[in-house]
Amino acid sequence: MKLYEYAPSGNCYKVRLLLAHLGVEYERIHMELRAGAARSPEFQAKTALMGRVPALELDDGSVLPESNAILCYLGEGTRYLPGDRLARAHALKWMFWEQYDHEPYIAVVRAWKAFWGVPAGREAELPMRVDRGYSALGVMEEHFSRHAWFTGADYGVADIALYAYTHVAGDGGFELDRFPEVRAWLARVAAQPGHVTIDQ
Amino acid sequence: MKLYEYAPSGNCYKVRLLLAHLGVEYERIHMELRAGAARSPEFQAKTALMGRVPALELDDGSVLPESNAILCYLGEGTRYLPGDRLARAHALKWMFWEQYDHEPYIAVVRAWKAFWGVPAGREAELPMRVDRGYSALGVMEEHFSRHAWFTGADYGVADIALYAYTHVAGDGGFELDRFPEVRAWLARVAAQPGHVTIDQ
Repeated sequence: MKLYEYAPSGNCYKVRLLLAHLGVEYERIHMELRAGAARSPEFQAKTALMGRVPALELDDGSVLPESNAILCYLGEGTRYLPGDRLARAHALKWMFWEQYDHEPYIAVVRAWKAFWGVPAGREAELPMRVDRGYSALGVMEEHFSRHAWFTGADYGVADIALYAYTHVAGDGGFELDRFPEVRAWLARVAAQPGHVTIDQ
Repeated sequence: MKLYEYAPSGNCYKVRLLLAHLGVEYERIHMELRAGAARSPEFQAKTALMGRVPALELDDGSVLPESNAILCYLGEGTRYLPGDRLARAHALKWMFWEQYDHEPYIAVVRAWKAFWGVPAGREAELPMRVDRGYSALGVMEEHFSRHAWFTGADYGVADIALYAYTHVAGDGGFELDRFPEVRAWLARVAAQPGHVTIDQ
């Protein structure tokens, strides 16, 4: 398998983290986002115009984009994706929530503050994105007051999906000290066998 | 089962459309979004602070929010969700794409233009959201130049997820006439046995 990626992206890190747990060998292919590599016609064609990392090229040459879809694909039949229909649906619930209510705020604020700067003309969005990022952290804090994990009874794909950008939320100026239950969960994730860090 | 919903929402319509195909009986519970019913403490507690419609209350009293997670739950073991691991991952890919690259543009522009008005202070976002909505329609047009459906070989959950807001994109001023392949797919969806419309 080949992973097309931009290493500091949390969405790409999600896939590396699950592949590390599974002990799967794969080739990492760096896409230089600033230089527009992910928007090249060749890469766009491979991913059916989505032109986005991560994308996983399977041994048959087919390419699967979308980080959370890749996690479900790789997790199928393993301890990281529940087999039970309702438990699986709740894991998916958190993964859809991550893409709609967490990533656009926590990851985008991080990308703007730590990497690219706020795009010209979009400065007014920043306070709204910070507010909604804190709302997302509040939802997580409440969840962890009653549960140990997002994926069900055990650590799995939904925890990986949400760990990726939460553990680096400080890069965007988010104060994680306000969320002790979230911090305890971050520590539980980092203690899982086979854990790798985002800079590995 | 009980469906907590706001009927004009495409996210809620997705669930009604699949339930209609499946011939499942359920109770519809109207949540008046303007009056903040979905933000009431009782409803927030039911959905673990997500406070959002649709949410499906199952016969055991547990509540599942997130429209696309509900589609996967209901679709499991039916012809509407592929059993094959890779086909299922590609269906999920389109459903994650819908929540990240389609709904925030096509559905939000519709909501602002046809229902709530543009929120004060966010006027500058409108042209960006229209542009990205058209980009999403372009991705769909390209897909349908080579494929009949989003879910795999047949109609299913990913088609339902994407039909919900695409077929009413005109409410937001999007010109679907520019996308003949998308329009042909909309007609194929509407011709499926058991189809119901958004206003039913």
